[in-house]
Amino acid sequence: MPSLDEKGYVFWLALARVQGLGCVGCKKLADHFGDPRRAFSASAGELAQVQGLDREAIEGLLAFSEWEEARRELERITEAGARIVPFIASDYPARLRMIADPPPFLYIKGDMRDEDTRAVAVVGSRSASDYGIRITRDLCRDLASLGFTVVSGMARGIDGEAHEAALSAGGRTLAVLGCGVDVVYPPEHEKLYRRICQNGAVLSELPMETPPFSYNFPARNRLISGITLGVVVVEATEKSGSLITAGLALEQGREVFAVPGEAGASRSRGTHRLIRQGAKLVETVQDVIEEIAPQLLARAGVGQKDTPVLLPPDVSVDAKKIFALVAERPLQIDEVIETSGLSPAKVSEILLDLEIRGFLKQLPGKRFMAGR
Amino acid sequence: MPSLDEKGYVFWLALARVQGLGCVGCKKLADHFGDPRRAFSASAGELAQVQGLDREAIEGLLAFSEWEEARRELERITEAGARIVPFIASDYPARLRMIADPPPFLYIKGDMRDEDTRAVAVVGSRSASDYGIRITRDLCRDLASLGFTVVSGMARGIDGEAHEAALSAGGRTLAVLGCGVDVVYPPEHEKLYRRICQNGAVLSELPMETPPFSYNFPARNRLISGITLGVVVVEATEKSGSLITAGLALEQGREVFAVPGEAGASRSRGTHRLIRQGAKLVETVQDVIEEIAPQLLARAGVGQKDTPVLLPPDVSVDAKKIFALVAERPLQIDEVIETSGLSPAKVSEILLDLEIRGFLKQLPGKRFMAGR
Repeated sequence: MPSLDEKGYVFWLALARVQGLGCVGCKKLADHFGDPRRAFSASAGELAQVQGLDREAIEGLLAFSEWEEARRELERITEAGARIVPFIASDYPARLRMIADPPPFLYIKGDMRDEDTRAVAVVGSRSASDYGIRITRDLCRDLASLGFTVVSGMARGIDGEAHEAALSAGGRTLAVLGCGVDVVYPPEHEKLYRRICQNGAVLSELPMETPPFSYNFPARNRLISGITLGVVVVEATEKSGSLITAGLALEQGREVFAVPGEAGASRSRGTHRLIRQGAKLVETVQDVIEEIAPQLLARAGVGQKDTPVLLPPDVSVDAKKIFALVAERPLQIDEVIETSGLSPAKVSEILLDLEIRGFLKQLPGKRFMAGR
Repeated sequence: MPSLDEKGYVFWLALARVQGLGCVGCKKLADHFGDPRRAFSASAGELAQVQGLDREAIEGLLAFSEWEEARRELERITEAGARIVPFIASDYPARLRMIADPPPFLYIKGDMRDEDTRAVAVVGSRSASDYGIRITRDLCRDLASLGFTVVSGMARGIDGEAHEAALSAGGRTLAVLGCGVDVVYPPEHEKLYRRICQNGAVLSELPMETPPFSYNFPARNRLISGITLGVVVVEATEKSGSLITAGLALEQGREVFAVPGEAGASRSRGTHRLIRQGAKLVETVQDVIEEIAPQLLARAGVGQKDTPVLLPPDVSVDAKKIFALVAERPLQIDEVIETSGLSPAKVSEILLDLEIRGFLKQLPGKRFMAGR
């Protein structure tokens, strides 16, 4: 066993190299031992007590010897200005932890923030149409200005445009790569890659220097849907990888959205199929917000003190005040006016705006409450 | 009471003029008396026995005196080369008879045929886009060549194009008007109107010479959906009358289909709303056929001897033979080949074609059966 690095990352890197372990085995070890260094010092008997760990994995752990490779990987990470975030770390994406096969750790270049839990994926064809590019720009700009982190795969076409639009709107964006976080692919996205690292992060579960092998892309796609509240597919041909992402999103219980196009347009055939299968048809960001608002509200715990936390940052102080009022109990507009001390015109305007954005709804008798 | 015209039509025309009766009252009388002349000769006591007929209607019937007007309406019908089809006549559209408020009779110019029960409505904006026009043409041409009668409202834009395309494909088409069947509106559709009368019919429930008052259009729309298996909305703005037709279609238990367009296109906003509300997204005629095939199969009584009746006329004799085989019981491809005496290549081709068109489906173990 090697000397310890500061945070024991080398044990995570070693874990990933253990024969027969895999994501699910790593998760079991993490659940059982917490710190993976304990897994490496455990006896065969102790390892046998880890529920569901099979013999091959136990033997792989006991026989493990590739410490030098793990150590070298750690050096590569440091040199690239990246780091890893282990499954058990507090900054590991909370939603990703809940999928069936979360990576034992993520390679990250850039930084992840608490607000990145409010993430929506926008993905689509590498060969996007002008229409697809335009819609991607509008959606991502609006998502970013509502305070959502835009997640995509940094590919050509829709993906690249999604990151660009989020960045241009001053928002945050995460790129989940199908290669190592130190590999810039496609090469023409080098500048974009650097901007993403500065205003978000690039993530991967693949070792440093891994080239963009297409067989890794489906696994990568489960991460895109895994870290987000929902996935918007802007354009997709019938055989598009975006449809895989959408399928995985459904399995993970994420919302799936699809942008329509003209009948007969090959790049909309995949999105139309998704819509027929139940994906929500998206014209504007409003359609996305409406669908995910209940999740945001549930997470924020409507009725508790901290509800305004779910409102986007562009919401005024007055709007936050009003939202906090109707989050406590349904109120009539007169009550809102009286309690808030704001003018009737202002209150009407704010209520309408919040209702349109899907943050509150009107009940019979002109009463307003938080939620859809 | 006037002298009798040949078929007693004047009594139907009279019925429509009775104060306080309305469609539902007429239907009650027709159900009770059959021939409406018996309603006019019935006593107050006999009329009181008609279930659900209210006092105003009874008084209206007893006091009725507008025989001259009814007689004059009959003359107008004859002069225009039109006729009426009463609710109780065998050529009254069967599906229309089943809606909540069927007209007591239809004015018809042209002729209705048995095959017009296989009808699909295609409707949309008066101000259609080039895209809308193109899709309408493709859909209606394909519907017509599959043997479906195309129903629409003869309005400018999508409606007119729907009739044109059906006629050009050598198919049948019905125009349901919001004015009298002798009124050509819009005037530029005069030639179209005449062609429809020759290869289908124009229908209305409104008296002869009734101008196209827009307040009559919603009622007209219930007839468009009423006589069809389903309604395809090609383009619709958010306030389009086509959305009313779609709503009525749903109430009547008809299928509702909507063609998508680009996000942000005002003429697709209505169709997108329909899709979000559950209308089936339509790209090609196949999407329509898939959805209505079960109804056609149910009507044809799959498993009985006459099942091939539901296949479109363009289907080959061989295809009809094969369909008849798999309609009796699910068969493996080898059994189909053996029983039909056709070549394996031919059988494969036909099975695939019928499957794609939604007339049969594959079961596990490569067995084929009629239906979806």
